[in-house]
Amino acid sequence: MTYQTITTEVANSVMTLMLNRPDRLNAFTQTMLDDMLAALDAADADDDVRAIIVTGAGRGFCAGVDLDDDNAFTAAKVDPAATDPGVWDDPANRDMGGILALRLFNCLKPVIAAVNGPAVGIGATMQLPMDIRIASDTARFGFVFARRGIVPEAASSWFLPRLVGMSQALEWCYSGRVFGADEARAGGLVRSVHAPGELLEVAHAIAREIADNTAPVSIALTRQMMWRMAGADHPMQAHRIDSRAIAARSSMADADEGVASFKEKRPPAFPDKVSRDMPGFFPWWTEPGWTGGDKQ
Amino acid sequence: MTYQTITTEVANSVMTLMLNRPDRLNAFTQTMLDDMLAALDAADADDDVRAIIVTGAGRGFCAGVDLDDDNAFTAAKVDPAATDPGVWDDPANRDMGGILALRLFNCLKPVIAAVNGPAVGIGATMQLPMDIRIASDTARFGFVFARRGIVPEAASSWFLPRLVGMSQALEWCYSGRVFGADEARAGGLVRSVHAPGELLEVAHAIAREIADNTAPVSIALTRQMMWRMAGADHPMQAHRIDSRAIAARSSMADADEGVASFKEKRPPAFPDKVSRDMPGFFPWWTEPGWTGGDKQ
Amino acid sequence: MTYQTITTEVANSVMTLMLNRPDRLNAFTQTMLDDMLAALDAADADDDVRAIIVTGAGRGFCAGVDLDDDNAFTAAKVDPAATDPGVWDDPANRDMGGILALRLFNCLKPVIAAVNGPAVGIGATMQLPMDIRIASDTARFGFVFARRGIVPEAASSWFLPRLVGMSQALEWCYSGRVFGADEARAGGLVRSVHAPGELLEVAHAIAREIADNTAPVSIALTRQMMWRMAGADHPMQAHRIDSRAIAARSSMADADEGVASFKEKRPPAFPDKVSRDMPGFFPWWTEPGWTGGDKQ
Repeated sequence: MTYQTITTEVANSVMTLMLNRPDRLNAFTQTMLDDMLAALDAADADDDVRAIIVTGAGRGFCAGVDLDDDNAFTAAKVDPAATDPGVWDDPANRDMGGILALRLFNCLKPVIAAVNGPAVGIGATMQLPMDIRIASDTARFGFVFARRGIVPEAASSWFLPRLVGMSQALEWCYSGRVFGADEARAGGLVRSVHAPGELLEVAHAIAREIADNTAPVSIALTRQMMWRMAGADHPMQAHRIDSRAIAARSSMADADEGVASFKEKRPPAFPDKVSRDMPGFFPWWTEPGWTGGDKQ
Repeated sequence: MTYQTITTEVANSVMTLMLNRPDRLNAFTQTMLDDMLAALDAADADDDVRAIIVTGAGRGFCAGVDLDDDNAFTAAKVDPAATDPGVWDDPANRDMGGILALRLFNCLKPVIAAVNGPAVGIGATMQLPMDIRIASDTARFGFVFARRGIVPEAASSWFLPRLVGMSQALEWCYSGRVFGADEARAGGLVRSVHAPGELLEVAHAIAREIADNTAPVSIALTRQMMWRMAGADHPMQAHRIDSRAIAARSSMADADEGVASFKEKRPPAFPDKVSRDMPGFFPWWTEPGWTGGDKQ
Repeated sequence: MTYQTITTEVANSVMTLMLNRPDRLNAFTQTMLDDMLAALDAADADDDVRAIIVTGAGRGFCAGVDLDDDNAFTAAKVDPAATDPGVWDDPANRDMGGILALRLFNCLKPVIAAVNGPAVGIGATMQLPMDIRIASDTARFGFVFARRGIVPEAASSWFLPRLVGMSQALEWCYSGRVFGADEARAGGLVRSVHAPGELLEVAHAIAREIADNTAPVSIALTRQMMWRMAGADHPMQAHRIDSRAIAARSSMADADEGVASFKEKRPPAFPDKVSRDMPGFFPWWTEPGWTGGDKQ
């Protein structure tokens, strides 16, 4: 598969998805959205991909939407004063960042952001639905939207407060200030900070621990259980799903291998595959539509 | 506008709302509730107010409900054993603190609590729907309700665990203990601790960074997007709203000024006003009523 | 009351619930589930129990489900490929850990986990609906499910991200790695780490501060208000309930004693009892059923 704005490489069970417009600090475009969606589909469909590392080519991670791109914002021009919901619910108005965020939310493989440089605007918000964020000490972050006269996007109003707490989320979005990797770590946005030359090595070590030790179908289920219960009202909702998942997985070949390899103190060789063996109750949800009555 | 129990002053685009019953450590009364509600309405309506700082006159922030006030609790006396929902849904039973908390939740301007001294009971819980909390090293906090035979109020069961985590929230409410600014910071309740003489200076610096750099309509939208998505089930709910907001804001004058000032490396001068230019889809929600079926 | 797999002792208003299969590192069985459910019922019904400490006999806390137990997993064998919801909604498929977690969620007394040694699988997830977790420096934790070919259970997809954040929750569950008490504390899973000989002493000090200073009915209401609002969409839901609770509690004998003991600077002697005096609006919720339409 070839892409225009990214590269992907699968090695040792890990897909490295590299944003690849280095002369533009990997600024985001409609084409980059399409490329990333296709790469995530490919990763989910490929049983050899056990984890995805997202990083940037050159000295940047992603400098935000490319303001010189003709389709910089997907939004068709609208009358901002319109009060007719039908105007707003036009699919042409869907935010590019949100489409990417929702695709990441639905991903079946762990996603690790390896933030190698400036990550501003959508370069910052696209990381939020990724599972683990690590940064080089040259990384910089900015939720700069209010300085540009717009607003945080990519469903970041849902993700960011859940990751860093409401006060930190608001302070970063209110100021629009660009800040460094240490502040990102202190505020809970990134897990750890590394020398630039060690960043990908650390990302691969995280991925390897998953790939070497765990069952792919278990990881795919775990990812969806965790993210989908983040907004659930009551733990009964989790109990219903993890009861199904425990019942299904206990009846599958992976469970036998899990117990056997544990008792024999050897590395596991799990036979079940994500492409073939997701339990019959999966997916258990109905994805909410673009329009709907549950706004709040 | 004159108030009985608070003072307000607008200077340099910041409203300072000072609780002003210093001989009572600014203990809370029904009149103080009415004064605060009126001051928040005034702040939201005044385009010259870019942020609100809440602090206390004298050596206290707010020592809780004034137990010597005849209307100390809004609750009419009820039969605690009543099982008829109609008894409980009487609007006369509405908790004063919750009315203030919900008004803060709906505020369109950033709110900074500058906690200058003891903040106990409602003096602690009223801070939770504020956006950023800073404290002087003379501040003290106490969720003392269970020591008085009552319960946490001001919708703090919704706000506090989201700010400091469930275990810390429960431990503070279970013990009812009064604790200092350092413990508040370690537990995530306040962002930073300062010398008393520097507290308001820090609060103003936070407010100034917002006022000098960002678009007021963007900030008002951001505040509501973040707080309202804190309890939302699914990121699609955020995607629907921020798609609308990106589409609207991209079509407004502020977006042009945001890009132009960025490219020209000069401070922005955003023309859109909160009083006049909130997009037509705002507010996008229907406020839940006092009674209703979604209790849990 | 006698149990087969645990012991309970009530002293100084605190129930110590000790998992008691030390030769099996207190590995979990169906009988242990039944014993724990009965002990929690007894604690809730006994007004002399002001807090519950859960710990393990011997050198372990709980080493997970006992793989040598015939009923190791409650799940009847199912066809994992089944797509009929009726297959999955069979009550025989309910996860043991989730039944325990939901019972803890509904508990009326504060629950303190004193983690004295290895806590793996359900030994880790059963702690999450407890209120406060402390650990000895010999404690070890592991969300090892994906290494065994199964998935996190006990409704932990709902609880764990709310306690430690999504990224930390995912990293622990993705790796399945066993980790020590210091990592658990750094990640927010436990509140503090202690020498083994001091662990129970610290747990009792936490319990004593509650028992000596606060009103039992206030604590029972606070526990349910906090946990149930953790997933609520809007703070109005909290406002409705804490308005009821403030109205009820202000009209009860405990409130008079709370104010009087405060003004007289003496320890309180609260007369209201959980077994007799919970307000008439309690419980205010309808517990969601095992099957239902609100899956997400």
